[in-house]
Amino acid sequence: MAMKRVAASALRAFTSSGNSTSSLLTRRLHASPGSKKIVGVFYDAKEYAAKNPNFLGCTENALGIRQWLESQGHQYIVTSDKEGPHCELEKHIPDLHVLITTPFHPAYVTAERIKKAKNLQLLLTAGIGSDHVDLKAAADAGLTVAEVTGSNVVSVAEDELMRVLILVRNFVPGHHQVISGDWNVAGIAYRAYDLEGKTVGTVGAGRIGRLLLQRLKPFNCNLLYHDRIKMDPELENQTGAKFEEDLDKMLPKCDIIVINMPLTEKTRGMFDKDRIARLKKGVLIVNNARGAIMDTQAVVDGCSSGQIGGYSGDVWNPQPAPKDHPWRYMPNQAMTPHISGTTIDAQIRYAAGVKDMLDRYFKGEDFPPQHYIVKDGELASQYR
Amino acid sequence: MAMKRVAASALRAFTSSGNSTSSLLTRRLHASPGSKKIVGVFYDAKEYAAKNPNFLGCTENALGIRQWLESQGHQYIVTSDKEGPHCELEKHIPDLHVLITTPFHPAYVTAERIKKAKNLQLLLTAGIGSDHVDLKAAADAGLTVAEVTGSNVVSVAEDELMRVLILVRNFVPGHHQVISGDWNVAGIAYRAYDLEGKTVGTVGAGRIGRLLLQRLKPFNCNLLYHDRIKMDPELENQTGAKFEEDLDKMLPKCDIIVINMPLTEKTRGMFDKDRIARLKKGVLIVNNARGAIMDTQAVVDGCSSGQIGGYSGDVWNPQPAPKDHPWRYMPNQAMTPHISGTTIDAQIRYAAGVKDMLDRYFKGEDFPPQHYIVKDGELASQYR
Repeated sequence: MAMKRVAASALRAFTSSGNSTSSLLTRRLHASPGSKKIVGVFYDAKEYAAKNPNFLGCTENALGIRQWLESQGHQYIVTSDKEGPHCELEKHIPDLHVLITTPFHPAYVTAERIKKAKNLQLLLTAGIGSDHVDLKAAADAGLTVAEVTGSNVVSVAEDELMRVLILVRNFVPGHHQVISGDWNVAGIAYRAYDLEGKTVGTVGAGRIGRLLLQRLKPFNCNLLYHDRIKMDPELENQTGAKFEEDLDKMLPKCDIIVINMPLTEKTRGMFDKDRIARLKKGVLIVNNARGAIMDTQAVVDGCSSGQIGGYSGDVWNPQPAPKDHPWRYMPNQAMTPHISGTTIDAQIRYAAGVKDMLDRYFKGEDFPPQHYIVKDGELASQYR
Repeated sequence: MAMKRVAASALRAFTSSGNSTSSLLTRRLHASPGSKKIVGVFYDAKEYAAKNPNFLGCTENALGIRQWLESQGHQYIVTSDKEGPHCELEKHIPDLHVLITTPFHPAYVTAERIKKAKNLQLLLTAGIGSDHVDLKAAADAGLTVAEVTGSNVVSVAEDELMRVLILVRNFVPGHHQVISGDWNVAGIAYRAYDLEGKTVGTVGAGRIGRLLLQRLKPFNCNLLYHDRIKMDPELENQTGAKFEEDLDKMLPKCDIIVINMPLTEKTRGMFDKDRIARLKKGVLIVNNARGAIMDTQAVVDGCSSGQIGGYSGDVWNPQPAPKDHPWRYMPNQAMTPHISGTTIDAQIRYAAGVKDMLDRYFKGEDFPPQHYIVKDGELASQYR
């Protein structure tokens, strides 16, 4: 078991030695024979669990894979209790082989937990976004981390466009008037606009950003995108979006900014006070990526001063957002809990993706390459 | 002045006699020389009026045409006080020449008011939708009714797509959780879906319905439309929408129904208890057309029973909606006051359109043909 704790560099050296039948490689790439202990951390659905047979992503329905796993002799524990030294998850850390987590109710897989998890081989994210895992620690421990890439990109892109429109049209104050018995069209209309003709920039044009640009195309906006790499010309032509190599040159041009980057050490806190101050006055910001990309207080201050005209997203730092999280109470916000990637359609897709990867893991087969976040001690390019 | 009250049929007979220099025709088609009394009925913006220089559609900013009108010697009265026998509007009915109204704060131009308005020649709608005018009475009195066709079709279509997404994604309960200090992803997710793959039908595919279909195209839905006439094949190909000649065959196929028809005697109350009962269980309905197209109580009952999974729109019957309007308090609604067509961008366009028509009226020129709702005693085809 000592070899499990070996550094990734050593593992890579080992791999390149060609000794591919070693127990180490077997442990890293697929399951050793026998019963596995699999733990899933999901949100509780309680009374909602029975309301929809396709509501798979909750503890009660447990991705719909319990019978399949247990019929093969595996142990399958699910819980929503994920915080603190005495939580249910913590009890299973020492002997679990596979940990399934989600971004919607994230189990924070810290270096400390990885150190304790002596049998752990595989970390699966049911959804997209594995930043709740200490990826460097996972890589150093030789673990495999994979997510169901693509499973909810459409779900998130659709939700982003909804939020763009909600902010541009000033929907939330209008709805509040309705439920509070008011009627004051002027109080909404003075800052309600068409999306048509506005400049929309996406920070990041990966899978989600591209789907957003495609959906924005018929709105006749001025579309901009910043990414590490330029899109292929066909996709650029299809969306009409213009590449902006320099992020800080793009941002002040935008009426609306949509964040579409993973949370990494480079992007953490990247929208801080200074960067927000350089945006167009009254800019609208949509962030379904990760809450920690923003400086929490800088967003509150921007919304309060009017520098930010509206802020909408479903991601928070931390999650669940505590009752006193200031984004709940700042003006001009259209926030929700973390829901954009967990539609019923997305749940069906990511449950199927997790099942497929478990099946491959049991059989010793590789995963689809785009699913790997950490493999052979290396992080996927977007997390570097 | 007696001729003013003559029936439209008589007027048409008169017109066809070729006596085109008569004072009657002069009165009907353009202004007789001299100062005119123009009355505009808009919503009050109060403290919001000064917050945006382009906020033209309120009493305070009065479409931005006061100086232009007064410099030509015309009188320009604006008010929001439009109801009851002692309201400000009523005082001016007997001697006004032109009445400008909007759908957002509609002055109901009844047969009785038309009868009293002995000098009235022209009814202009700043926006689209002139059903607040008794069009038959206006036609019989030989009045011209015109709206700024096209001025806010993009605004309304964008807003409809926002509402489709808000319902599909179950946004409103999510936002309510945030502001009430809760976090319960399951309570939202069990009935949140992707728009992708769903069947969306528009009842009416005029200017707004077509813009909606174009914007829905990249969402990979199954698009259906019902209208009096089939679109030209190019537009049908462009949107991929399928024509459904029989409305009641289309409706039960739809996961999402969007209403895009004017309110006429044929469409009033057309979504009644029976028709709603024949829809797909849990159907989502978006209605930015007119509130009276729905049977008010049937919508409440449908939302309460779950037959309607969600209802969103900005139109009510009557407007402003009274404090006790049941749509304010029914479950699964995402309503707002009547705002979709009065974005700042739309206001700039319809203010310009009203000014242009007034200018043509003063000069005795025709309006752009698509603007006429009642002309020469005839209703535009969509209102017949």
